[in-house]
Amino acid sequence: MTAVLSGTEVAAGIRTEVTAEAARLTAAGTPPRLAVVVATDDGSSASYVRSIARAAQRTGIACTVVDLGPDAAPEEIRAALAALSDDPAVHGIILQTPLPPDADFEDLAAAIDPAKDVDGANPLSLGRLAADLPSFPPATAEAVLVLLDAHGVPLAGARAVVVGRSNVVGKPVAQLLLARDATVTICHRHTKELADVTRTADVLVAAVGRPGLVTAEHVAEGVVVGDVGTNPTPDGGLVGDVDAASVTGRAGALTPVPGGVGPVTTALLLRHTVAAARASAGSA
Amino acid sequence: MTAVLSGTEVAAGIRTEVTAEAARLTAAGTPPRLAVVVATDDGSSASYVRSIARAAQRTGIACTVVDLGPDAAPEEIRAALAALSDDPAVHGIILQTPLPPDADFEDLAAAIDPAKDVDGANPLSLGRLAADLPSFPPATAEAVLVLLDAHGVPLAGARAVVVGRSNVVGKPVAQLLLARDATVTICHRHTKELADVTRTADVLVAAVGRPGLVTAEHVAEGVVVGDVGTNPTPDGGLVGDVDAASVTGRAGALTPVPGGVGPVTTALLLRHTVAAARASAGSA
Repeated sequence: MTAVLSGTEVAAGIRTEVTAEAARLTAAGTPPRLAVVVATDDGSSASYVRSIARAAQRTGIACTVVDLGPDAAPEEIRAALAALSDDPAVHGIILQTPLPPDADFEDLAAAIDPAKDVDGANPLSLGRLAADLPSFPPATAEAVLVLLDAHGVPLAGARAVVVGRSNVVGKPVAQLLLARDATVTICHRHTKELADVTRTADVLVAAVGRPGLVTAEHVAEGVVVGDVGTNPTPDGGLVGDVDAASVTGRAGALTPVPGGVGPVTTALLLRHTVAAARASAGSA
Repeated sequence: MTAVLSGTEVAAGIRTEVTAEAARLTAAGTPPRLAVVVATDDGSSASYVRSIARAAQRTGIACTVVDLGPDAAPEEIRAALAALSDDPAVHGIILQTPLPPDADFEDLAAAIDPAKDVDGANPLSLGRLAADLPSFPPATAEAVLVLLDAHGVPLAGARAVVVGRSNVVGKPVAQLLLARDATVTICHRHTKELADVTRTADVLVAAVGRPGLVTAEHVAEGVVVGDVGTNPTPDGGLVGDVDAASVTGRAGALTPVPGGVGPVTTALLLRHTVAAARASAGSA
């Protein structure tokens, strides 16, 4: 039997907590506000931004979308991030991807005030995470850990294998697993005999963005699999990086796509925003 | 046969290059200067600082040791780092360890201007390293890579295992190996069956600070072993984390202690300092 590690209830629980905290902050004179900077006309990005804005509003967080258009110059994007960093009414800032081809994500994200960097995009946030200093981890990476914790998966001393080494997911999820005392291996396109490596895992995280990359041959009996992939299908749906049908019966547990890491990620962005608002109210 | 991957000649080559560059910078009106902030009366720390100062002076780099004493308050240390960061005559800054018990290394290192952070101690430097942005890596971590490169050890697609997860060595050496397309595993005190993991390595890096931690049972035939340990012996010598006698004949190659990573580390601190001086001259 392969257990399904749903994120739906976990996300709902976080949203309930966020709603209460947002109401408290608003009553105390600090209505929390999230800003999303967009510089693309990509359709799936637009639908993701709409879903964040909706989720924010439902929990009592105001959401400003700053749409600079797909032709925005890097300096315009940087200026928008700097202005939002200086705006005391804004508590959380997200730089949406994709960006125009001449814009470098990490370089621009350095313009986000680390105190408002609710998706852990500023390289300083990544460094603070690596150095075990307080910071907001990238929400997707943290969502994997939250989901594993919610389902009671032991991490200390576990063998964890992360497939993918992006700055937004693979590397930070590896840092978070390491901070929880897992023995962590990071794989990527240059890894030889990938299946031999992934079969050593107690916990396997797939974060590559390739549908069906992980199949039965990649998983040992009983492994817990976190699927971070969100690959659009031709019919408008989503599939993960894991071939769920293939690993089912062999893996011990699997986070579903959709309904796994995704909803928890959105809920964590909101939790980070109220935490940032609370910190700004405390320091004001 | 186990090859000895000496660092002596590699370090000498770097110092030759640094000496020429320091002379050029001095002639052009930017004499390079390194500052070391010390807040300990630890004897081996003092002898390390003396050896850095000597090496700097020999290559034509001025070296200022700011000794705040073992009772320095964290705010004094922070103020010293901030003052050196603001001083245009100083190009490289090192915060020496150990620190007084109430001082947090990463927290204080955040006061080092990243442009002068020649030992990659500021969490921003670690984040920029993780994000593949330009930064100075911690010199010890970089020394491992320089030594492997100098001896032609292939890294792309190799299985690399790092034992130790410190912010100054284990984590950054893992980042550097990952950036070179190795498949990287990070082990630590919670790792179960350590020898089973380390025996999967093509390249094994020991960075724990425990003499003789790595023995024949931990190494596969032919593995290349980088030994970052510098553990003092009762007779005033140094031994690494690897039991050299035990692995010799089985490992393919080993960096010696002393004479391996250590001299290359010092040479890289000097190389970083002239690079910082060159950048400051270019931007002045």
